[in-house]
Amino acid sequence: MSSNQLFQYSVVSALMDGVAETGMTILDLMAHGDHGLGTFRHMVGEMIILDGVIYDMKPDGSVVAIDSTACAEQTAPFAMVTRFEPTATTSRPLQNKDALAQVLSQLLPGTKNHYVAFRVDGAFKAVTVRTVGGQKSPGERLAEIGKRQVSHSFEHVRGTIIGFRSPAFMQGVSVAGDHLHFISENRDSGGHVLALESDDDLTIAASPITAVHLQLPSNDEDYNQAELARDDKGIAAVEG
Amino acid sequence: MSSNQLFQYSVVSALMDGVAETGMTILDLMAHGDHGLGTFRHMVGEMIILDGVIYDMKPDGSVVAIDSTACAEQTAPFAMVTRFEPTATTSRPLQNKDALAQVLSQLLPGTKNHYVAFRVDGAFKAVTVRTVGGQKSPGERLAEIGKRQVSHSFEHVRGTIIGFRSPAFMQGVSVAGDHLHFISENRDSGGHVLALESDDDLTIAASPITAVHLQLPSNDEDYNQAELARDDKGIAAVEG
Repeated sequence: MSSNQLFQYSVVSALMDGVAETGMTILDLMAHGDHGLGTFRHMVGEMIILDGVIYDMKPDGSVVAIDSTACAEQTAPFAMVTRFEPTATTSRPLQNKDALAQVLSQLLPGTKNHYVAFRVDGAFKAVTVRTVGGQKSPGERLAEIGKRQVSHSFEHVRGTIIGFRSPAFMQGVSVAGDHLHFISENRDSGGHVLALESDDDLTIAASPITAVHLQLPSNDEDYNQAELARDDKGIAAVEG
Repeated sequence: MSSNQLFQYSVVSALMDGVAETGMTILDLMAHGDHGLGTFRHMVGEMIILDGVIYDMKPDGSVVAIDSTACAEQTAPFAMVTRFEPTATTSRPLQNKDALAQVLSQLLPGTKNHYVAFRVDGAFKAVTVRTVGGQKSPGERLAEIGKRQVSHSFEHVRGTIIGFRSPAFMQGVSVAGDHLHFISENRDSGGHVLALESDDDLTIAASPITAVHLQLPSNDEDYNQAELARDDKGIAAVEG
């Protein structure tokens, strides 16, 4: 796949409906990009793909890089990846997530109806993340899992955010708006970003995406039966 | 592109919003499939791609096959194409469009959350089509154009229907449900199918689609500015 095209496996509405029993192998997923995010089987942990390495950020707060043997076995019920080549870069402090959203809009004007891939590197004053704890029973819906979510806050931490912005009309397929995962520079902590703050300049790099390759689950009876109704509030609650 | 994958240029919501000034060249489009449907610049006429030949079914009722010179020049603001290899086939009469929908669901069970490509060949007792008449002014919305649509009915006509079924959660990206274009066997008439009827057996062939390649317009300021709100009623009125 060429750079700055999006490959996505499954749709966010399927996660909302608890479709997480099978998925795409990490090995197959990694063939489509070196930059991305997602989750793992039964929604146990947050996935981040950084410079071609895939990390499993587990509910207990630990982080492991997935080796090639595990790549062939482990599956992702949802993931978004790209070969990231930033077309615009800037450096500035970010007071919060909204400030990042504004910077991205300024950096890439005219992209509200496109996807955007982005990356933020530097020293954060604070980052708050959650790591999804997984289904207690097969098919448990993401909104239910989300109620048990545990957040972790890190202060004075260097690290990287990998993110995608999805256009509003793709809500349900993707997460409309910005979706960010964080990993620390020493790769020992991270998760789905709930809040961020930095007094120092962060490096913010981004690229618009106009080509989207969506692979829907096949041979997955849970997916086939799922309602996949668009749930704006539910998505905002667990993925916002 | 492998067989039975969907390539789609732009989204139906963009057509609804009147985004039809530019688009993908027919030449580029044809690289992605031999079976499809769409419309042309300014939404003048209905497109059908049958066995690798692309036809322009014009508002005045005439039909022309587009030659290779025109393919490099003419653009499509919206199109869906695939390399069609049916995985299931049946023969039976069809009383109406609903009967076709039922037959497709029986032919490919468990595909409500996938796309389906299909084709219907044979002798029809009657087919009613419309051919979209084009924008009167740049950016005119499809709902407005639709109000002026002229329908044509053909009786005792042999021909082919090319269609796509899109999952409900893709409404706005595609047309949720079945979207059908018809062309007569002697290639002198056709359009967007409003109604059909056959007492004779028709050959109905179909294939599920799980891989979707969506190319969003780039360098298109009309697209960039478009609202792209999901308009269920509007889409049903002009594309149902």
